[in-house]
Amino acid sequence: MTTPLNFSSDYTFGAHPAVLKALMDTNELRTPGYGTDDLCEKARSAIREACACRDAEVHFFSGGTQANATVITAALRHDQGVLSADTGHVNLHEAGSIEAGGHKVLTVPHENGKLTAAAVQAFLTAFYADENHAHMVCPGMVYISQPTEYGTLYSLKELRALSAVCKAYGLPLYLDGARLAYALGSRENDVTLPDIAACCDAFYIGGTKCGALFGEAVVLVNKALFPRFFTVVKQRGALLAKGRVLGVQFSALFTDGLYESIGKTAVAAADGLRKLFREKGYPLFMENPTNQVFVVFPDEKIKTLRPEVSFGFWEKYDDAHTVVRFAADWATDQAMLDALRELL
Amino acid sequence: MTTPLNFSSDYTFGAHPAVLKALMDTNELRTPGYGTDDLCEKARSAIREACACRDAEVHFFSGGTQANATVITAALRHDQGVLSADTGHVNLHEAGSIEAGGHKVLTVPHENGKLTAAAVQAFLTAFYADENHAHMVCPGMVYISQPTEYGTLYSLKELRALSAVCKAYGLPLYLDGARLAYALGSRENDVTLPDIAACCDAFYIGGTKCGALFGEAVVLVNKALFPRFFTVVKQRGALLAKGRVLGVQFSALFTDGLYESIGKTAVAAADGLRKLFREKGYPLFMENPTNQVFVVFPDEKIKTLRPEVSFGFWEKYDDAHTVVRFAADWATDQAMLDALRELL
Amino acid sequence: MTTPLNFSSDYTFGAHPAVLKALMDTNELRTPGYGTDDLCEKARSAIREACACRDAEVHFFSGGTQANATVITAALRHDQGVLSADTGHVNLHEAGSIEAGGHKVLTVPHENGKLTAAAVQAFLTAFYADENHAHMVCPGMVYISQPTEYGTLYSLKELRALSAVCKAYGLPLYLDGARLAYALGSRENDVTLPDIAACCDAFYIGGTKCGALFGEAVVLVNKALFPRFFTVVKQRGALLAKGRVLGVQFSALFTDGLYESIGKTAVAAADGLRKLFREKGYPLFMENPTNQVFVVFPDEKIKTLRPEVSFGFWEKYDDAHTVVRFAADWATDQAMLDALRELL
Amino acid sequence: MTTPLNFSSDYTFGAHPAVLKALMDTNELRTPGYGTDDLCEKARSAIREACACRDAEVHFFSGGTQANATVITAALRHDQGVLSADTGHVNLHEAGSIEAGGHKVLTVPHENGKLTAAAVQAFLTAFYADENHAHMVCPGMVYISQPTEYGTLYSLKELRALSAVCKAYGLPLYLDGARLAYALGSRENDVTLPDIAACCDAFYIGGTKCGALFGEAVVLVNKALFPRFFTVVKQRGALLAKGRVLGVQFSALFTDGLYESIGKTAVAAADGLRKLFREKGYPLFMENPTNQVFVVFPDEKIKTLRPEVSFGFWEKYDDAHTVVRFAADWATDQAMLDALRELL
Repeated sequence: MTTPLNFSSDYTFGAHPAVLKALMDTNELRTPGYGTDDLCEKARSAIREACACRDAEVHFFSGGTQANATVITAALRHDQGVLSADTGHVNLHEAGSIEAGGHKVLTVPHENGKLTAAAVQAFLTAFYADENHAHMVCPGMVYISQPTEYGTLYSLKELRALSAVCKAYGLPLYLDGARLAYALGSRENDVTLPDIAACCDAFYIGGTKCGALFGEAVVLVNKALFPRFFTVVKQRGALLAKGRVLGVQFSALFTDGLYESIGKTAVAAADGLRKLFREKGYPLFMENPTNQVFVVFPDEKIKTLRPEVSFGFWEKYDDAHTVVRFAADWATDQAMLDALRELL
Repeated sequence: MTTPLNFSSDYTFGAHPAVLKALMDTNELRTPGYGTDDLCEKARSAIREACACRDAEVHFFSGGTQANATVITAALRHDQGVLSADTGHVNLHEAGSIEAGGHKVLTVPHENGKLTAAAVQAFLTAFYADENHAHMVCPGMVYISQPTEYGTLYSLKELRALSAVCKAYGLPLYLDGARLAYALGSRENDVTLPDIAACCDAFYIGGTKCGALFGEAVVLVNKALFPRFFTVVKQRGALLAKGRVLGVQFSALFTDGLYESIGKTAVAAADGLRKLFREKGYPLFMENPTNQVFVVFPDEKIKTLRPEVSFGFWEKYDDAHTVVRFAADWATDQAMLDALRELL
Repeated sequence: MTTPLNFSSDYTFGAHPAVLKALMDTNELRTPGYGTDDLCEKARSAIREACACRDAEVHFFSGGTQANATVITAALRHDQGVLSADTGHVNLHEAGSIEAGGHKVLTVPHENGKLTAAAVQAFLTAFYADENHAHMVCPGMVYISQPTEYGTLYSLKELRALSAVCKAYGLPLYLDGARLAYALGSRENDVTLPDIAACCDAFYIGGTKCGALFGEAVVLVNKALFPRFFTVVKQRGALLAKGRVLGVQFSALFTDGLYESIGKTAVAAADGLRKLFREKGYPLFMENPTNQVFVVFPDEKIKTLRPEVSFGFWEKYDDAHTVVRFAADWATDQAMLDALRELL
Repeated sequence: MTTPLNFSSDYTFGAHPAVLKALMDTNELRTPGYGTDDLCEKARSAIREACACRDAEVHFFSGGTQANATVITAALRHDQGVLSADTGHVNLHEAGSIEAGGHKVLTVPHENGKLTAAAVQAFLTAFYADENHAHMVCPGMVYISQPTEYGTLYSLKELRALSAVCKAYGLPLYLDGARLAYALGSRENDVTLPDIAACCDAFYIGGTKCGALFGEAVVLVNKALFPRFFTVVKQRGALLAKGRVLGVQFSALFTDGLYESIGKTAVAAADGLRKLFREKGYPLFMENPTNQVFVVFPDEKIKTLRPEVSFGFWEKYDDAHTVVRFAADWATDQAMLDALRELL
């Protein structure tokens, strides 16, 4: 039934044991609904502290598409759209969620999955220079992800440059941290949670792909941009009646450095995968320092591997090769790597 | 911190132990994402069987507002709206979720929380008799809930009559079963899951309020009305990456009659509450045979009870009295009733 | 082909001769597009002056549904809806235009077609008293029409009371003046254009039903509520490339008191109709001092009249009678009344 | 006030005299509203005949953005988007109108402003080959314009190839004919109205830029795709109460070959402009056989011309040059060309 060797994504396993234990330990409490309970409040405090951002609002969501659509929609006026790299998750893989809420995703070409300050500056300069820009969708927010969809990272310098352009134009900056643990856990990373809170107006800390059973934590740094946000959350169908189920998990993730530790474990496993592919002579499609590994396989090899191993399709490389994705998570262990080595 | 005596709703407790156990037992499996796994498939089979509806599509959601908005939106053309009792949850308490998707909620006056076949017939007759109806929103779906927001139940006869009107006008009928266990577990109920599947084009079986940690199961009986539904689910932000987390819970709920048993236990507890209020001389605002109890309290009494007991505000009754709601669930036990008795 | 005797509405005739002449006189000018030309600017000045409102923004639209949807949508945040009498045009007869833009129409019962200050106050009091109001659509604008859909008028006292309630709650007030000429031209009216500008945050002056070939002029008194409104107009498909076609018409309507004079002529004709119905013994369904006459006819009479006269269906009165509407406009003349008298 | 020499667009002049005369001649008729009158019916018949398409539905609109948004929105399910060249008007210059209706514009790179059959085929092949396409917006309609935004034309062979790809995938093809007269009037054109009706599921015949005072005629060839379209038109605010005002104009345009003749006159004037620019040594940015001329001017020259001549900004060419647009229409005469020659 389930493939024994599954590298297809970072959401194939259940919850981290500490997260599951927290759910069990609190299961028989009776609490008020919709995240108004003390367990959620405790998680919020832990997150605010980790982000060095005492005044932020923290809201919990079940998934990333929901979090993105709610934050972006809530921030935009009807005449505005959100600016994203063309590779942005909101542009390609969320089934038109932003547009379903009435807003256009404005795209600029990515650089290694990243939206650079220069590209944003160029877009804005051209936009405001265009005599007809009043007939066009006005950028009203900038969307980035850390790590990006390609597993790459913004450096602190890059993030600050982007933030400076946004501030110069009065554009809120929003960061999608679906895999944020794998940024925080990467050796190459120099961007901390407080840095993110200082540079962004809003961001989310991913749980689903980073050790939780499910769930994401949206941090609204610049609260004034999101009036009556609770109602928008409800309207988008994103308000969990038993909100505490999310709070409890994030409390666990933000206790004793678990969140960052999960990230480190997974990145180490991904490093193991990278080493393995190099050994076996499969070229990496794109270098990145996080938990996703993009590797070029001959199509023949893919055919023979498929019954034994799960991994993701990324894109066709050429007529005889395909880029595939192997993802590691905190539970990817040496046994899995060894088993894979046998098959390569 | 959390009130010791909490009757405020049926989502104040965690999951039923059997549900939690199923989550623990499956936690270390690796499965594909988005509900495409075998655990979800097993739950789907169990639900199809319980509904005697082999061909239905079953989709899992995190919450009810999300399920309602997705099903209703997916079924409607741009010129259509959904017909509901004025007391319908989609009309009042989902923050405009249907409208945010572009559709009007058309309302008719309720009878004890119910939308009667006669009321629907009257609406449709008047609509099509109006010379200007091409300038008006066309009813494109009918929404009901079982139990209703008032805890009342449609009889099989009533449900069939409603279904007949809907069929006569080619209108899909959708049933919101957020608290369906408490209908199925009520002595007065004569509507089975197969009856619902026979009368409705779509419905959802509530988990969040009926023993799950969270989650609802949408059953699409008339699949042709919902083309490419998976994508609409994704677009609405309602697709859980670790979809199995929902499947596992519904498998547990549909094993050994657990779902109905949860309903019975809660309704029995609610009967205990009703008995208690009668004993103490507090009049019931409205009779119903399910797990919610609406009772009229003097405002003075409310003030003294509040620090000790949690319950819900329903509506003002008169200058000195208020209707409040006590909800029972499967974990409401005799100790809670006894403690309440002391305070009344 | 066209019925000789047509009282079915106030948009059955072409333009007032002065309006048509203005279009002919300016036809061969070349001007910039989208209402940025001098002819539009002249019309805007005339309207601002008539409203004693020097700083207002004036935008021209092709029709009323478009104007209503654009103004209301532009003013609302995603969590907000618009409050209207249940008889409001935006609620019933605009095909769900507001909801298609993502917003709910919140309704309260009308009084003679009017939304009273007391009804709005009661709605708001109940809304903010409800413990669950964060789960509900928040009123974000109030919509009224002058004259109302029933042809009735707000007195200055009533309008000021409504405005005061709105201001107290920070709610913008918007007035739909599709038939505003017939208010301004009514003997019973005591509300001037400057009064409207003083009481409302936005309103529109109807042209289509009041002498123009087509078109409406939206006046944004409180401009800060409508940032980048031009783009929203474009987005809603409401921006006319040859915008001057609208400006030219409104210049004509606001020269030498033509707009009010058109109103007076039509109301006088409607008074003629009322007199005629009384003479002939047909009871008026509802008294009103403007250009629409609602009269109760036996169904038999309707059958015999239909081939000879056009008039509108309003609603069934009883099993044998129906309320019908006769509308007068500035071109309804004595010959038409005489011809009708013959048939009654 | 208005610039004497205005080439800025093809909507700077009023109506063609024959159109204006038709409006005057019918002004005093009384007709039913909303386009249900005989004058509209006559125009519909003329258009159906010109398109050799007896069964088509014809609907009149005030402007192109409105027509595009209504047709596209009405055709799409919630999970679908519209495929367009990246230069498509709906993608860039309609202020996000499609997205405001809930749908994504999916783009592919243009070739001379055109969407080729090969590009559409490549998009669809890649889409359906992508394992994750259920997470992506599904193409549900294809949008093209004739002439394109660059003034270029699809040949009949190209249009048929595109139509064949669309049919193979069950994708409706929609053609935006804002400037269709200038295609029909071009010597290089080999695509007739009946060809368009045979290849497309819907299209619109532009009036605003082609001799009308304002207005566009949408032709629904494949009516089954647009159920209850009238209501969607109303919902989008696109239904003119005095609908006949549009019908009358299109009757005039489709009498005695006026529409095509207007196109020819304008293209001849544009040819004069092209000749003039060549003479004076200003390079054309892109060749096209219709009424828009794209020419590269030194920025210095632009500065000196601006006070005397109106023309459109297109895009920056390099640091010292800019692409500008000169548009001709049926009223662009030799005197205008001569005056321009003096200034170049």
